[in-house]
Amino acid sequence: MCRVIDMNDILERSLLYDFYGELLTDRQKKVYQAVVFDDLSPSEVAEEEGISRQGVHDMVRRCEKLLQGYEDKLGLVARFSQTKDLVAQIRQQAELFRKTGDVSCVSRIEHISMEIGEL
Amino acid sequence: MCRVIDMNDILERSLLYDFYGELLTDRQKKVYQAVVFDDLSPSEVAEEEGISRQGVHDMVRRCEKLLQGYEDKLGLVARFSQTKDLVAQIRQQAELFRKTGDVSCVSRIEHISMEIGEL
Repeated sequence: MCRVIDMNDILERSLLYDFYGELLTDRQKKVYQAVVFDDLSPSEVAEEEGISRQGVHDMVRRCEKLLQGYEDKLGLVARFSQTKDLVAQIRQQAELFRKTGDVSCVSRIEHISMEIGEL
Repeated sequence: MCRVIDMNDILERSLLYDFYGELLTDRQKKVYQAVVFDDLSPSEVAEEEGISRQGVHDMVRRCEKLLQGYEDKLGLVARFSQTKDLVAQIRQQAELFRKTGDVSCVSRIEHISMEIGEL
């Protein structure tokens, strides 16, 4: 079977699961992990769990909807990602300072760190 | 009435509400905000909402339990606080560099920013 793998999609799913996965039931977690992260086929998971392929499919869809619902309400993945992006900028400025000795890099670091404080 | 105000407690409640408040119902949010943040008495809120003082008290307790439950499961307030603490350290190092010109501050900034990347 040919699957088109979208890395952004995988990253997005990983982040949502990393942030909100613990709000799923143990069964939901087990099935979702198996299909989405361990890349098992719905048939394999269905057999293991003693439910239908459709049941597996529905459970994965339901989990996706729940996880996305939490993010829609709380926006914590977005908030954390913004912070991480700004921290990456700080690291870049520190590296640039090391290479060039340009002190304005450190001013920018101070500025960015204050921006993060306001998030 | 004399109330002992614990600032850490207020901060903790604010953070929990800031992170997970949107998972409460509109009614829960309204009552919780009125009592906890607007500092209205349970009697005032009870009258406004048309419920008993005990009802208000129970709802506030229930909200606290829910918010703390989300944090116990997800730990996102703790994760975010760790990040903020490290960012504050970056800001301090940048200020120290501005005052002393000590380039080791920038190495420390680079180190801390990598630490944040691993959170």
